[in-house]
Amino acid sequence: MNFLEERIAKDGIVKEGNVLKVDSFLNHQMDIELLNEIGKELKKRFEGKPINKILTIEASGIGIACVAAQYFGVPVVFAKKAKSINLEGEMYVAEVESFTHKCKNQVIVAKKFLGEDDHVLIIDDFLANGCALQGLIQIVQSAGASVEGIGIAVEKGFQSGGRIIRNLGYQLESLAIVESMDSENGTIYFREQ
Amino acid sequence: MNFLEERIAKDGIVKEGNVLKVDSFLNHQMDIELLNEIGKELKKRFEGKPINKILTIEASGIGIACVAAQYFGVPVVFAKKAKSINLEGEMYVAEVESFTHKCKNQVIVAKKFLGEDDHVLIIDDFLANGCALQGLIQIVQSAGASVEGIGIAVEKGFQSGGRIIRNLGYQLESLAIVESMDSENGTIYFREQ
Repeated sequence: MNFLEERIAKDGIVKEGNVLKVDSFLNHQMDIELLNEIGKELKKRFEGKPINKILTIEASGIGIACVAAQYFGVPVVFAKKAKSINLEGEMYVAEVESFTHKCKNQVIVAKKFLGEDDHVLIIDDFLANGCALQGLIQIVQSAGASVEGIGIAVEKGFQSGGRIIRNLGYQLESLAIVESMDSENGTIYFREQ
Repeated sequence: MNFLEERIAKDGIVKEGNVLKVDSFLNHQMDIELLNEIGKELKKRFEGKPINKILTIEASGIGIACVAAQYFGVPVVFAKKAKSINLEGEMYVAEVESFTHKCKNQVIVAKKFLGEDDHVLIIDDFLANGCALQGLIQIVQSAGASVEGIGIAVEKGFQSGGRIIRNLGYQLESLAIVESMDSENGTIYFREQ
């Protein structure tokens, strides 16, 4: 097991309905040392790629993206999930359907922060069905920018998001891929990488 | 002018209605080197305080809080703004009224991440009327924890939030306090600190 798998095995909580809670260290309370380890590992996995911008989505992707960005020396842009009155000017908008919240969301990025010269690394904390991620990819493509890769902390390997993205030919690196979970005894099984 | 005031003067955009846009470097696209400078300065201003946790609120506070947390060596907890189905268990909830979005929000933190042993530094990107900040203070108090201080990147000094918080006796450090803005010529006047 790598450092993140170890931490998930130690502090992740398995709930019925294939829910995995990592909110004590990743997406409500955040262990900044862990985020630094994730950043270092992402830098290693995307070594040599001409990344000049990191794109993430509010809210829980922002912490990982900002700490990781220090290893890439690039700015972070975070996509917003709903139209805010303070976000004016021209925007890229992608419609995505969320499975978790059972509603449609708009993923929004101001056009001035993404253009055809951008080589983008997309970072997020979680990948399950991949709706948010599909919205982010759509936005990068609308901008004429290129997706250099996608870095995820935790992927639920038993849901379809990761397979779809890999089938589309993207370099998707998930630092921990959960293959299955047993809510009776709390055991988490990871995919060998 | 300090480093942040200089950056606001250079890249901030003044719009009619006392709107200040800093979205090219602070709260949509984020300059991570600038976030590091903010983190270092906050560490200096709260030197000697027994801070063991940083509390912020989604979404745009998270980046600053996570980068700053590296200088304090403490975890970050971010408050959520609306009830999510993945946020279960007992929660602290504060009702706050937003002036920007003209609606009521709930500010929510899971009880397990904040308790009476916690010495909290609250961090956010912006302070205007201070509604979100009041919600965060309310939550820290509900938890029996102590507010060691409040660190803000940009305060709109001509709105009431900062004065109210200082009147209540909190150590509020805003790295840039905008005293007034002229939307005709784009000039921004900062409070001498």
